Amino acid sequence: MKQKKYIFTYTDQVRDYECDLQGIVNNANYQHYLEHTRHKFLEKNQLSFSELHKRGVDCVVARISIDYKNSLRPGDVYISCLNVEKEGIKYVFLQDIYKPNEENGTQQGVLCIRSRIETVALINGRLGTTKELDALAEETDSLKEN
Amino acid sequence: MKQKKYIFTYTDQVRDYECDLQGIVNNANYQHYLEHTRHKFLEKNQLSFSELHKRGVDCVVARISIDYKNSLRPGDVYISCLNVEKEGIKYVFLQDIYKPNEENGTQQGVLCIRSRIETVALINGRLGTTKELDALAEETDSLKEN
Amino acid sequence: MKQKKYIFTYTDQVRDYECDLQGIVNNANYQHYLEHTRHKFLEKNQLSFSELHKRGVDCVVARISIDYKNSLRPGDVYISCLNVEKEGIKYVFLQDIYKPNEENGTQQGVLCIRSRIETVALINGRLGTTKELDALAEETDSLKEN
Amino acid sequence: MKQKKYIFTYTDQVRDYECDLQGIVNNANYQHYLEHTRHKFLEKNQLSFSELHKRGVDCVVARISIDYKNSLRPGDVYISCLNVEKEGIKYVFLQDIYKPNEENGTQQGVLCIRSRIETVALINGRLGTTKELDALAEETDSLKEN
Repeated sequence: MKQKKYIFTYTDQVRDYECDLQGIVNNANYQHYLEHTRHKFLEKNQLSFSELHKRGVDCVVARISIDYKNSLRPGDVYISCLNVEKEGIKYVFLQDIYKPNEENGTQQGVLCIRSRIETVALINGRLGTTKELDALAEETDSLKEN
Repeated sequence: MKQKKYIFTYTDQVRDYECDLQGIVNNANYQHYLEHTRHKFLEKNQLSFSELHKRGVDCVVARISIDYKNSLRPGDVYISCLNVEKEGIKYVFLQDIYKPNEENGTQQGVLCIRSRIETVALINGRLGTTKELDALAEETDSLKEN
Repeated sequence: MKQKKYIFTYTDQVRDYECDLQGIVNNANYQHYLEHTRHKFLEKNQLSFSELHKRGVDCVVARISIDYKNSLRPGDVYISCLNVEKEGIKYVFLQDIYKPNEENGTQQGVLCIRSRIETVALINGRLGTTKELDALAEETDSLKEN
Repeated sequence: MKQKKYIFTYTDQVRDYECDLQGIVNNANYQHYLEHTRHKFLEKNQLSFSELHKRGVDCVVARISIDYKNSLRPGDVYISCLNVEKEGIKYVFLQDIYKPNEENGTQQGVLCIRSRIETVALINGRLGTTKELDALAEETDSLKEN
């Protein structure tokens, strides 16, 4: 399988309490995975969601769409992958979650979630953009050129 | 404000633990509200999510899209509204969440969430439809004719 | 069954997503029920957890003990009952959760949770007491005298 | 600081959504950390909570007590530590959560949570013990002898 390129990946494991009575991860919890991945991505870039909040910059989700392709189950390892693009004043996160390939354990195997998260930055309560967030979006662009 | 028609509405109140450090309901928790509303809707129609599961019928979400319009805050009351339509083998739930109108407290006021939840029924693990779910989808159709 | 007296009761229903793969309410979620009940109790007394927080008063849990007697299941209605006592600078909440009596639906039936929640008030970061919280604790005392 | 001995430790990091409007990890979420640590401990011993459930063995929590010593905040790393002892038919987990020591990052620093979780095993719905769980409890005993 051809590996899709992402500017950030985060690997973690399903916790049992995230599963519901169907024995699979509850749909809402994937949003937690996606949010946590974005925050880990910010962290890697020396930005913190809670620090931004204290400085008056709140990144809020305006629109989310998620395709549920395959379910994660108790104990499953997952690879959460992220790209981000700028569209007008929006920062659009393209986030996919995979089970790892069984053969090598590190690469993208079965696709579980394909999502698009449109966020906007509120700076002291008003819509705006910031240079530090713009810089992050440029990384994905440069990925395409290669 | 003109009131939109729905076949089912459910009123509840934000719980403080559903809010995150931004002081607003965490995005993922709206999915919990939407899921719970669907299950209350099934319940009203003498169907139960967990009973269906035991009978081998699992309703799973295939795709979700949510527009986040306005945030709910600690203590806010919300009105969660639902319609459902059949599209091929999909049962599509159109679910909106409002704050009540401040003047009368019971009608739709500020729109918080507009969502579209595409679900499919797995009957003993295979895609299918059931008469009882079809019947529910017809209610929304009859709403349009009026 | 003799009914135990409480100064506050709150009735609600299990949401399916609160249940885990064992098909019963996940243990951690009872703490959500207990917290929400305390906040509803504050609300009834014209106090709000988030308003208190803004005024520099944070009620924090110092110690919790919970006896898990019987499990709640999907769709179950529960009655969450509360008393509060003052012990030194602690506000101790005695909180029990019951399934309603099947015969009349409103009274305490099967005991599910028996808990003791020791809280302290941080006033601008320092341990303290407030008259408004003291007043709430006196209600339970007066209950005993009757 | 003298390091306390445990038979199992698990290190993870606070996720922002686990924090509430007070800006600290919500009390109920520590139960999630504790539960997940127990399940990781089982996993390390080739036992799985969900597999045990399928074989008719349900480990259920009978009683929990948690001392909340210090709060975890967004982004904090924590070390979740576990011992387990057998008391009659109970398996008692002694679980503590620390922030790591700032100097070396791996050892126990500030104590956040001290807890005692009493569990019982239901084997096909009846209280019982199993050899595999008994074996786990013996590990902690041997720790004491050293």
